[in-house]
Amino acid sequence: MVYRTQMEAAKKGIITPEMERVAGEERLAPEELRQRVAKGEVVIPYNKNHRPSRPQGIGRGLRTKINVNLGVSNDCCDVEEELAKADRAVALKADALMDLSSYGKTREFRRQLLARSPVMVGTVPVYDAVASLKKDLTGLTPGDFLAVVREHAEDGVDFITIHAGLNREVAAHFKRNPRLTKIVSRGGSLLFAWMEGTNKENPFYEYFDDLLAICREYDVTISLGDACRPGSVGDATDAAQVAELIVLGELTLRAWEQDVQVMIEGPGHMKIDEIAANVLLEKKLCHGAPFYVLGPVVTDIAPGYDHITAAIGGAIAAAAGADFLCYVTPAEHLKLPDAEEMKEGIMAARIAAHAADLVKGVPGAAGWDEEMSRARQELNWERMFNLALDPVKARAMREKARPSDPATCTMCGKMCAVRNINTVLAGETVKI
Amino acid sequence: MVYRTQMEAAKKGIITPEMERVAGEERLAPEELRQRVAKGEVVIPYNKNHRPSRPQGIGRGLRTKINVNLGVSNDCCDVEEELAKADRAVALKADALMDLSSYGKTREFRRQLLARSPVMVGTVPVYDAVASLKKDLTGLTPGDFLAVVREHAEDGVDFITIHAGLNREVAAHFKRNPRLTKIVSRGGSLLFAWMEGTNKENPFYEYFDDLLAICREYDVTISLGDACRPGSVGDATDAAQVAELIVLGELTLRAWEQDVQVMIEGPGHMKIDEIAANVLLEKKLCHGAPFYVLGPVVTDIAPGYDHITAAIGGAIAAAAGADFLCYVTPAEHLKLPDAEEMKEGIMAARIAAHAADLVKGVPGAAGWDEEMSRARQELNWERMFNLALDPVKARAMREKARPSDPATCTMCGKMCAVRNINTVLAGETVKI
Repeated sequence: MVYRTQMEAAKKGIITPEMERVAGEERLAPEELRQRVAKGEVVIPYNKNHRPSRPQGIGRGLRTKINVNLGVSNDCCDVEEELAKADRAVALKADALMDLSSYGKTREFRRQLLARSPVMVGTVPVYDAVASLKKDLTGLTPGDFLAVVREHAEDGVDFITIHAGLNREVAAHFKRNPRLTKIVSRGGSLLFAWMEGTNKENPFYEYFDDLLAICREYDVTISLGDACRPGSVGDATDAAQVAELIVLGELTLRAWEQDVQVMIEGPGHMKIDEIAANVLLEKKLCHGAPFYVLGPVVTDIAPGYDHITAAIGGAIAAAAGADFLCYVTPAEHLKLPDAEEMKEGIMAARIAAHAADLVKGVPGAAGWDEEMSRARQELNWERMFNLALDPVKARAMREKARPSDPATCTMCGKMCAVRNINTVLAGETVKI
Repeated sequence: MVYRTQMEAAKKGIITPEMERVAGEERLAPEELRQRVAKGEVVIPYNKNHRPSRPQGIGRGLRTKINVNLGVSNDCCDVEEELAKADRAVALKADALMDLSSYGKTREFRRQLLARSPVMVGTVPVYDAVASLKKDLTGLTPGDFLAVVREHAEDGVDFITIHAGLNREVAAHFKRNPRLTKIVSRGGSLLFAWMEGTNKENPFYEYFDDLLAICREYDVTISLGDACRPGSVGDATDAAQVAELIVLGELTLRAWEQDVQVMIEGPGHMKIDEIAANVLLEKKLCHGAPFYVLGPVVTDIAPGYDHITAAIGGAIAAAAGADFLCYVTPAEHLKLPDAEEMKEGIMAARIAAHAADLVKGVPGAAGWDEEMSRARQELNWERMFNLALDPVKARAMREKARPSDPATCTMCGKMCAVRNINTVLAGETVKI
């Protein structure tokens, strides 16, 4: 075996077929991409037991990627429905799927999902450890947690969220610095409960080297979870959050020593003016590792519209350097999303990612907007529909309201600025 | 008559009943508000022939306001339907309504709207001048344009958009600096067509003093329109746009000399990283006058979702100091919005405004988020619904998916982080 992980290959100067492919899609020189993978600035989640047919890179200078969550749970346990959602998410251009299953036939679902998913798949093993619990939470041993990680790795999971940063020291910071919404990370709250109940160290922190050995074997990318992410804008950038981030940075270096790929998870709920500073903190404390943000939602008051609050925060975060956006749907804070809400979440996340890519100067990003604007200037409606983020919705909307002048739309009718300016610039007389 | 306009009163040291009321709502000392009105940093659009029952201030340090557009047009000319939309917009907390009627019984509609609107009403008189056109556009005289302005002022319109900045010099900059989407301002394109057709100066620029006399008489606030606002992200912050903004700043000083209140209209389409600079430019070149932005939409590629592209840009603009957001609906670039699309636009604009108010430190803004977060921490669903931006939608969404544990939601079920952390912190054992 010449290399076990993409990072190992990169460090050895090898450009893997996946790097080749990702570099092509990103319009980047393969050697440049290799260097970024070697430094840890870019990850290519690619478990050798899954080998997604559409591998993607996440990190510096690349197109901002988006993730879609799904999975079976106690209240929503229809495997077929969730698999159909997965197919639709891929069709809507999700770059990654996270299986957050927490109940029932989780392994069956995970295997089916991996078998059909052309894109990278992530999981949070701690949910699964708890989902199959036949005993008290505190009855789980560190070995139980690691066994679930190994199972996920063997099944082919490309990246796993591991809340290894919430160690006893960070937990002490959390307790000393009161916050409004405590711990809102599902995995983080379970680990905290386990630590409090057993009086032991976080098993993923204590046995981090064992975890790395598993991840190295299958090339599972670790997504270091932020157990202390703020759950309200008032809690953002507090001691617990930043203390955990410092630990995540230290764990990142340990992972890199073992050639294990790493990304870092981030907020959460956060006011607009704290976002850029948080991206900077992550990039500095975690040595340039890719940043994967959930939101951030920029206000707490809009349940039912959190795809919008997250699109605002996600766009700002990605424009400031975040690399990977976890989608948020209108159902966030209320319920599991259905297929339609999933679609709304995907569209909002894709808008945020693309708006940021214009700022990042991602190759090809600005060209899309230019083509659309040219189609608008020409009042070429067919071309506008074809270029639209969502051609079906754009076409259907216009067809609901046919203008009397087919070149224009019902917004301005014959006062259409585009129509008028084209007429004037052609030296002709405007007729209203 | 002691004073004709709010600005005149403010300069004379008089705190008007409207300043008193606005200061109360904004939790600001009336004297502080008076000083800002005197300096032109805050406007209180309040035509003495309308006297909106809910006057609002727009400007420095105040809550970010939102405007809703409506009106009758060639393709959508049902007066009753538009009036019903106006009522609904007010119920959904629009701070202002702009009547953009461009066809048919425009005066009848305007008068009915003013008679029922408790909030400030704005118009764009040039549309109306063209709407009733019995001759060629170039047949209109400067006197015709001013006559329409006087009619609107007499009818009670609180603020009017006037594209006075597109003078011949700015038009020359526009012609010398090619842009992708030319002029996308409806009023701006009509004036440009008139100027090109007649070879004359912009009538609102040439007869600006006459315009000011009318506005001073009724206390109509001038919203100086940006005819050269970018219609694609690639055109943003170009020579035409900035040249026009310089002229708008000069006109602002002339208006203030006559005690006429002024705000400045802004972009448009713009990448995320240009927005803060544009707010700074406006505040500097226009001497601190309130900034009223349309969007900015941060990418061109999402027709059908421009309430989201605009919420991103609007939130960033307002966080950087913009004072007034014109709502954008999902129908933007496709058709006139229906009532449901109007609602989506309002909600997105309110989210953007509030997210920015958290950054601006607007009194009371953060308290709302805190209350919501406290309700979340207590898993008090009734209180969450009541505090939600849209209580009806939030409640309906949750009721579509009843969790087996009524304290939680179907997102996490018994793995609910809030439930678990509360259990642990109470010293009890978590049961999954």
